[in-house]
Amino acid sequence: MIKNNPALCLLLGILFLIACSPAGSDTKNKSKDDLKQAEYALAIHGGAGTMSKANLTPETEKSIREALNNALSIGEEILKNGGTAMDAVEQTIIVLENSSHFNAGKGAVFTNAGTNELDASFMDGATRNAGAVGGVTVVKNPIKAARAVMEKSAHVLLTGEGANQFAREQNIEIVDPSYFHTDRRWESLQKAKAREEQTGELFSIDSPFKYGTVGCAALDKSGNLAAGTSTGGMTNKRYNRIGDSPIVGAGIYANNNTCAISSTGHGEFFIRFAVAYDISAMMEYKEMPFQEAADFVINQKLKAEGGSGGIIGVDKYGNVAMPFNTSGMYRGYVKPGEREVLIFR
Amino acid sequence: MIKNNPALCLLLGILFLIACSPAGSDTKNKSKDDLKQAEYALAIHGGAGTMSKANLTPETEKSIREALNNALSIGEEILKNGGTAMDAVEQTIIVLENSSHFNAGKGAVFTNAGTNELDASFMDGATRNAGAVGGVTVVKNPIKAARAVMEKSAHVLLTGEGANQFAREQNIEIVDPSYFHTDRRWESLQKAKAREEQTGELFSIDSPFKYGTVGCAALDKSGNLAAGTSTGGMTNKRYNRIGDSPIVGAGIYANNNTCAISSTGHGEFFIRFAVAYDISAMMEYKEMPFQEAADFVINQKLKAEGGSGGIIGVDKYGNVAMPFNTSGMYRGYVKPGEREVLIFR
Repeated sequence: MIKNNPALCLLLGILFLIACSPAGSDTKNKSKDDLKQAEYALAIHGGAGTMSKANLTPETEKSIREALNNALSIGEEILKNGGTAMDAVEQTIIVLENSSHFNAGKGAVFTNAGTNELDASFMDGATRNAGAVGGVTVVKNPIKAARAVMEKSAHVLLTGEGANQFAREQNIEIVDPSYFHTDRRWESLQKAKAREEQTGELFSIDSPFKYGTVGCAALDKSGNLAAGTSTGGMTNKRYNRIGDSPIVGAGIYANNNTCAISSTGHGEFFIRFAVAYDISAMMEYKEMPFQEAADFVINQKLKAEGGSGGIIGVDKYGNVAMPFNTSGMYRGYVKPGEREVLIFR
Repeated sequence: MIKNNPALCLLLGILFLIACSPAGSDTKNKSKDDLKQAEYALAIHGGAGTMSKANLTPETEKSIREALNNALSIGEEILKNGGTAMDAVEQTIIVLENSSHFNAGKGAVFTNAGTNELDASFMDGATRNAGAVGGVTVVKNPIKAARAVMEKSAHVLLTGEGANQFAREQNIEIVDPSYFHTDRRWESLQKAKAREEQTGELFSIDSPFKYGTVGCAALDKSGNLAAGTSTGGMTNKRYNRIGDSPIVGAGIYANNNTCAISSTGHGEFFIRFAVAYDISAMMEYKEMPFQEAADFVINQKLKAEGGSGGIIGVDKYGNVAMPFNTSGMYRGYVKPGEREVLIFR
């Protein structure tokens, strides 16, 4: 009997391994993804949502594309000159925070109380150190505070008035809360409140900026990865709600062995499904290429659960992934001799 | 040539598969771990740290064991009678929060400012819904507030005064902040401050309660998993620091397809390494048994990075894992006809 014959099984197994081994070489069969594709790479997003050609004027679209390009240029300049992924990420995000187009820094949305509460996070792929702030109200560039938490404190996540105080002590630029006032975001709050009164739904804001966030991920010439995320959260939020942006593994993740990621979307889903870490885990444990893992998590797993949004990221080889399951995501990337800025599908 | 012969490779491969298939059956070869081991199961912890026989009086040890046994009894009663894992987890944690032995609820440690800021989280393995509060100051049982965030809000994480306010609106029992005052914790703060003044080290508290937290994970008769975690954080903490306890994927995780986990330890490490989710991901993506995955993450990965602490958890089959890399962890579990309460290695 051929079936269930242990001796035959062993013999065939050995012959099988010999017959199927590559000739004259024991080099691993590397896929394209396994090769370093770029000396450096940097990807950014300015939020995912229901943006469409119809609700963006040509002027606004042009201005947003300019802001995204400016951010890419700042980041690329640093990487090209041999700067660190961490510096590139921080400086790129500062450009996005200082633009009123995006829901972060200057352009942050309003809470139900008419205030602005900003969240940000920063992560170093080399050490997997991380820092984050939740609900800061007077820090001009929350990404600076997040990096300072990583580098200058024993903690990962500081919140509220304590995080403001930490930023003050670190001599990070403080602004009057009125700095974050923009008429456009104020009107969004009034609309959200009116809609809430009518429908009882807190966050049914039909706006292209529903999931506004900014983020950046970078690979530098030394092979180090870093990521950062910054947001004003959700219009009309209450109870000092914190979303996924300052949560390591959800809104941000960076690991030199896999990838660096920044998320944007319905934060509660990104937290529950540990979206950023999950992509890294699928790469590490299932040996999936970055783009495949990122696409699977955003367009299969998350979508099946009703979670909307996207991520941008860079893997250790310089591959860029920017999947999203909404109708649009402000996004772009640069590599040596390559650059793209995109909004719609 | 036998080497690198595709036709021979295919033929041998087919013969190999036939020869090695089990005789007369196509049943999968299930390991013990794959079989439902228990109708229900519940595991708890009361924090990990440097506890030793030398620094626990026999009276204190007895009293701690009693408190852990009381908690197990409350949880088991619910599960035995067909109650849900969620109810068992909540009620079990309330017992631990109401005991002054553990750093959660009544026994919470003090912040640098001499206040008590409590964090808690709750997660339902069936839906992977989650709720958490960070830095509440007037909620008697933060685990109740965490569950309410999950069930009664659109959010996952509420913090500070907003979280207090949410709890008030949900008619969750509110106490005066002085409720959390215990002389023992007040003395710990004074010692920590004195030590900080001498050494400059913020958290070098040589105390068995260094990583005090309480937690519970349960499997009910319907096959649903749930987990909860509650803590007072770190003695002498500042800047509204939030640790891993309210962070999904770090201090808590529950998924009916894998396991339910509550963590205790140096929170910053648990956040950076997404400890609770990582164990679940290794089970899902590498098909590792729960105990093996939990042990690997705590005693290999985390330890190698200098992160100390442990987890307790239950998998979907009712297997219990309670690994820790400190000298002790208050812990225990119950299954039908089985119960254990342990402190040291």
